[in-house]
Amino acid sequence: MTEAMPGTILDILTPALILDRTRLQANADRMRARVEQLGVRLRPHVKTSKSIDVLRILAGGADAPITVSTLAEARYFFRHGVRDILYAVGIASVKLPQVAELIRSGCTLRIILDSVDAADAVQGFGTSEGLAIEALVEVDTDGKRAGVDPEDDLLIEIARRLSSGRGARLAGVMTHAGGSYSARTLGEFEAIAERERAGAVTAANRLRAAGFPVDIVSVGSTPTVHYARTLEGVTEARVGVYAFGDLVQAELGTCDIGDIAISVLASVIGHSREHGRVLIDAGFLALSRDRGTADFAVDWGYGAVCDASGEVIANVRVDSTNQEHGIITAVSGELDWSRFPIGACVRILPNHACATAAAYDRYFVTDGREEVVDIWERVNGW
Amino acid sequence: MTEAMPGTILDILTPALILDRTRLQANADRMRARVEQLGVRLRPHVKTSKSIDVLRILAGGADAPITVSTLAEARYFFRHGVRDILYAVGIASVKLPQVAELIRSGCTLRIILDSVDAADAVQGFGTSEGLAIEALVEVDTDGKRAGVDPEDDLLIEIARRLSSGRGARLAGVMTHAGGSYSARTLGEFEAIAERERAGAVTAANRLRAAGFPVDIVSVGSTPTVHYARTLEGVTEARVGVYAFGDLVQAELGTCDIGDIAISVLASVIGHSREHGRVLIDAGFLALSRDRGTADFAVDWGYGAVCDASGEVIANVRVDSTNQEHGIITAVSGELDWSRFPIGACVRILPNHACATAAAYDRYFVTDGREEVVDIWERVNGW
Repeated sequence: MTEAMPGTILDILTPALILDRTRLQANADRMRARVEQLGVRLRPHVKTSKSIDVLRILAGGADAPITVSTLAEARYFFRHGVRDILYAVGIASVKLPQVAELIRSGCTLRIILDSVDAADAVQGFGTSEGLAIEALVEVDTDGKRAGVDPEDDLLIEIARRLSSGRGARLAGVMTHAGGSYSARTLGEFEAIAERERAGAVTAANRLRAAGFPVDIVSVGSTPTVHYARTLEGVTEARVGVYAFGDLVQAELGTCDIGDIAISVLASVIGHSREHGRVLIDAGFLALSRDRGTADFAVDWGYGAVCDASGEVIANVRVDSTNQEHGIITAVSGELDWSRFPIGACVRILPNHACATAAAYDRYFVTDGREEVVDIWERVNGW
Repeated sequence: MTEAMPGTILDILTPALILDRTRLQANADRMRARVEQLGVRLRPHVKTSKSIDVLRILAGGADAPITVSTLAEARYFFRHGVRDILYAVGIASVKLPQVAELIRSGCTLRIILDSVDAADAVQGFGTSEGLAIEALVEVDTDGKRAGVDPEDDLLIEIARRLSSGRGARLAGVMTHAGGSYSARTLGEFEAIAERERAGAVTAANRLRAAGFPVDIVSVGSTPTVHYARTLEGVTEARVGVYAFGDLVQAELGTCDIGDIAISVLASVIGHSREHGRVLIDAGFLALSRDRGTADFAVDWGYGAVCDASGEVIANVRVDSTNQEHGIITAVSGELDWSRFPIGACVRILPNHACATAAAYDRYFVTDGREEVVDIWERVNGW
């Protein structure tokens, strides 16, 4: 069965992923202005959208440096003309042959690492291949995941190993304050953004003082770049989820619910009047198991429910999911059954756009109305 | 980059999905014997594996009737020669044209529904297309998801609508006791299995008494079929996750941890000695966000950690995940760092096999050793 372009979203087989291009454009414009104001370069993280069509909007039509979370993304975007790519997951040696192949093909692909063992592996591999592989040292600025403490002498030792031969080259430092997702007040957001900035700059300056050139000082998460008061000393900002926004970002204050650019289209397939439940054909594969709003003021369950036009329906949420079933219930009181006839179409806003979009190989693109104006592909897997 | 068959799993780019064919075969043999003993037909649910190669093992080489959770599965398995397919998610009218296309191509595709509105939609569509679409009425035997109460007169009314014209045909009844996942004691498992059986048979007998022929009486979940004392009056059992097993099934007692046939291959990419954390390159996209064991005696976090040979490493689990990062910590006391050198390969057993496998488009198949003996494709999406 080949797929013709559906006329409107009501012709699409559910579940499916809808992308509102008008909202995407507005989100892109806002972040470009923000990063310009902060005086750094924008390096969008494409792990959210995994789409060259989305990147063209984020980059404002021009060529863009990007951040990737998989080598599958690196290969796909390079094939579509992107040349400057940061692979922002600590490198595993089993991946070095693919890194080398991309570099030999003309890609400026940089990798990251945070250990002497990884630095030695890269140095050894690059030497044996006759390639100088560019690496950034990952710095830890919030204790949440990876990286070297900016004050630790390990930072200098890693730089020394990367600079000890012709197989590698120190390109800079990078950090990601994932801890920003735990902040709730403006003061907390500003503090963690400043810690992210200061940690990266401290690491860069310590390396420079030790005689190592540091070209790139890279920071970012959507919340820290949104709330940062300054990015002085930083050269680039990595942000991803701002492109689509989601319910977690709305709770964090980095977007409004009306800015969320993706939604999962689903059909009403059953009613249980006795239990006050509407059944839809979007379960945890279609919506993801992400419960990111569980710890926020408003817990959206597995997603906020909208009508076919994208308007949020009050007092309901997706309360539970199985693989291909979602259950909508009233948050309080009675469910308004008139909104959910059997066969009707609803749209679910995601808790976490990156997790939800990952189940789909394409976007059905609209301009905010029901007409489908385009279909854009995504690159999933590894 | 085309993909050659890797020699051993150590040559595979991480993360990746490993399938132990020896364990799969044993799980398949055990369930075939079990269902034969119960005197019903086996209709494997392919939502777990989504692979024709896996189905051939589950079906014992012969042609098999199957259950699907998506029309993408129906199209894929039909293309590979499967003829008897039950689509076990309540039908949405937007999908009827694809149902009709499969039936016209020679597929015995049956659908399910649990409302008068859906029955009327199918009857109307079938009539206009000149097709008699076969439908099963979904029956609710545990109050957990979908279906008509077996004692409700709505059951008879739906059958009447399905039989009121030439566009539809009542083919039987089906139920799924998903509530079996909440059982913990043998008594509870046996009680819910009996409720599933009795509810389906009651519904079938009420329809027969009202003059409607009922050919198919279909029940199933891996726990209820595992624990049922009898399936008298039932014609077929639908089971899926038994094929692979997982940590939830091990906690439910339907398999042992040593029976689990899939695992996620990952690389160690970092250490945080200070926080007692090993970082791997398998995050929530590679492992899924499923926390299915959270409510059981043993909480495996996001998965149990094995070495490259598949042996479980004691006292550790995947404690948290980001998109492409997983964090392994000790359950208690000190982590044994010697098991996790930078660049080493580990394998993660899933909480929920269906959720974890869904992120992958292929299996790297082994016979329990490190050699890769085959690559099998999966069909994802909708």
